[in-house]
Amino acid sequence: MFEQLGLIGCGLMGGSFALALKRAKLVKRVVGYSKSPSTTERARQLGVIDVAAPSALLAVSGADLVLVAVPVSASEATFKAIRHGVSSDTLVMDVGSTKGDVIEAARRGLQNQFSSFVPAHPIAGKEVAGVEHAEASLFDGRQVILTPTKTTLRSNVQRAAQLWTGIGAQVLTMTPQDHDSAFAAVSHLPHLLAFAFTNAVAEQPDGARFLGLAGPGFRDFTRIAASDPAVWRDILLANREQVLLQSQAFRTKLLELEALIAAGDAQALENTIADARRTRAQWRSPGN
Amino acid sequence: MFEQLGLIGCGLMGGSFALALKRAKLVKRVVGYSKSPSTTERARQLGVIDVAAPSALLAVSGADLVLVAVPVSASEATFKAIRHGVSSDTLVMDVGSTKGDVIEAARRGLQNQFSSFVPAHPIAGKEVAGVEHAEASLFDGRQVILTPTKTTLRSNVQRAAQLWTGIGAQVLTMTPQDHDSAFAAVSHLPHLLAFAFTNAVAEQPDGARFLGLAGPGFRDFTRIAASDPAVWRDILLANREQVLLQSQAFRTKLLELEALIAAGDAQALENTIADARRTRAQWRSPGN
Repeated sequence: MFEQLGLIGCGLMGGSFALALKRAKLVKRVVGYSKSPSTTERARQLGVIDVAAPSALLAVSGADLVLVAVPVSASEATFKAIRHGVSSDTLVMDVGSTKGDVIEAARRGLQNQFSSFVPAHPIAGKEVAGVEHAEASLFDGRQVILTPTKTTLRSNVQRAAQLWTGIGAQVLTMTPQDHDSAFAAVSHLPHLLAFAFTNAVAEQPDGARFLGLAGPGFRDFTRIAASDPAVWRDILLANREQVLLQSQAFRTKLLELEALIAAGDAQALENTIADARRTRAQWRSPGN
Repeated sequence: MFEQLGLIGCGLMGGSFALALKRAKLVKRVVGYSKSPSTTERARQLGVIDVAAPSALLAVSGADLVLVAVPVSASEATFKAIRHGVSSDTLVMDVGSTKGDVIEAARRGLQNQFSSFVPAHPIAGKEVAGVEHAEASLFDGRQVILTPTKTTLRSNVQRAAQLWTGIGAQVLTMTPQDHDSAFAAVSHLPHLLAFAFTNAVAEQPDGARFLGLAGPGFRDFTRIAASDPAVWRDILLANREQVLLQSQAFRTKLLELEALIAAGDAQALENTIADARRTRAQWRSPGN
C-alpha cells in the first residue's frame, strides 16, 4: 500500500494507472499534474486524481510513488523538475515505449536520485488518447516490462513488480538493450512499414481509386498507420539505431522475395510463404 | 433465374456461391465437380450441390451458368476441360484474385467460347477454406469486380451484374489492367510485406524471444501472413509485374523514412507519419 501517488501526466496511461491503483486499494491519495491545467482539472473532476497540483514538483512532494507518464520527448525536463521532491524512499517509474533514451533522460534529470527510478513499459494502450478514456482495467492481463540498470535499487524493482502484479499485469524483467531491440522488431518496425505503405499507396496517381477497393486485409495491416504522429516520431527517433537495423533486415527479406517472384521460382516462393504462415499461425498474443 | 449451375470447384468460394444462389432462388439445380471426389461428395451431402458430376465437362453439360472456382494455376486446364460443354448461351465466370492471367487462360482454354466468359473477383473470403465453411451470406454487402474484355458478350456482363446484385453484392466494372494494378497495391503488396516481415523477425537469433513480446499491433499487422501459401504463390506470380512495381514504390518510401530517422529530422518525420495517419483515418472499408 502506498500513501501517495504523484502522477505527472494525467492522460490515458497515467489516468488508467491511478484508477487501477485505486481499484486495487494500493494507494491512499493521488496528486496529479499535467502540463495543461484543463487536463489536470478534468482528471480531478473524473475522480482519476484526488488533488490537482500546480507544478510537477508539488505533485511529487510527499509522494512515496511517482509515475512519469509524459511524452518521451518531455522526459528529461520532467525528471529535472521533480528531482528535489524525490528521495531514496520514493519509487519512480515511467511508461515509455523505449527504454534506453528514457534511462539517459532520467540519469541526467534525477542525478543522485537516479537509483530510485525503475524504467517500466506496460504493453497496453488504446487507439484513443486522453484522461476521459482512462480505465482501471487497462493493464489487466497485460505484460509490463521492467528494465532496471545496474544502479537501480533492487528493493524498488521488487516494489514495482509487486505493484504491477497487484493491478493485474504480468511482469517481465529484462535489460534496456534487450527491450529496445525486441520492440524495434515487433512494434516499431511494423509501424514504420505501415506508414511507408500507406503513403506509397495514397501518393500514387491512382491512389484514391486503389484505396476505394481495399478490403479487410488492408484494414488490419494498416490499422497502426493511424497512430499518433508525435508519439511515433519520438519512438522512432529515440530507438533509431535498432529501428534502422530492423528495417535493413526487413528490406533484405523483401528483396529476396522479389527475386523469387521475378524469377518465377514457384517452389521457393511457396516455401517462404509457408515459413511465414507457420510462424504466424503458431504465434499467440501474450496476455490474451 | 438460371436453370442449372455447373460448379467447378466446390470449396469455400464455389460452395458459398451455390448456397447464395439457392437462398435467393436464382437457380433450380446445382451440378458440382471437384478434383477430389471426396470434396464433391461432401458438397452433395451438405446440400451445397444437388448432383455430383464425375467430370468438369459433365458438370457444365446443360448448364446455363458456370462458375470456375479453382486455384488460379488450374484455370487453363479447367477452361479447356469444359469448352465443349459451353455454348454462346452460357454465362461463364471465375472468382480469381488476379484477372489478366485468368483472362489469358480462358482465351486459350475456351477458344471460340471465350466471349461467354465474364471475369469476376468477389472481394470476400474467410481465413478458413473448404466447403464445410461455405455460407450463403459470404457475398452480402461485398464488392464484386467484373473485368470484361473487348470481346466479352455485353449481354453476359449484364446477366452477371444482375446475378451478383441478386445475391447481395455490390458490382463494380473495370478493365483487367485497372483491377490488377489496384489489387497489387492494396492486397498483394501487403501480403508480400507481411510475409517478408514475419520471416525477418522469426529468422533472427532472438526471433523467438521477440515474438513472445509482440502485442496487438503485431497481431493485426501480420494477420494476412497466415494466408494460404499455394494461393498466394499463384497470385504473386500471376500479377508479378504490378506486384514488383508496387514493391519498388514501397521501398522508395521506406528508404525516405529511414533517411529522416537517420538524420533526426523530427519535423519531416512527424509530417510524413501525419500523412499516413490522415489517409488511414479517412479510409472506410467498402461494403462495411
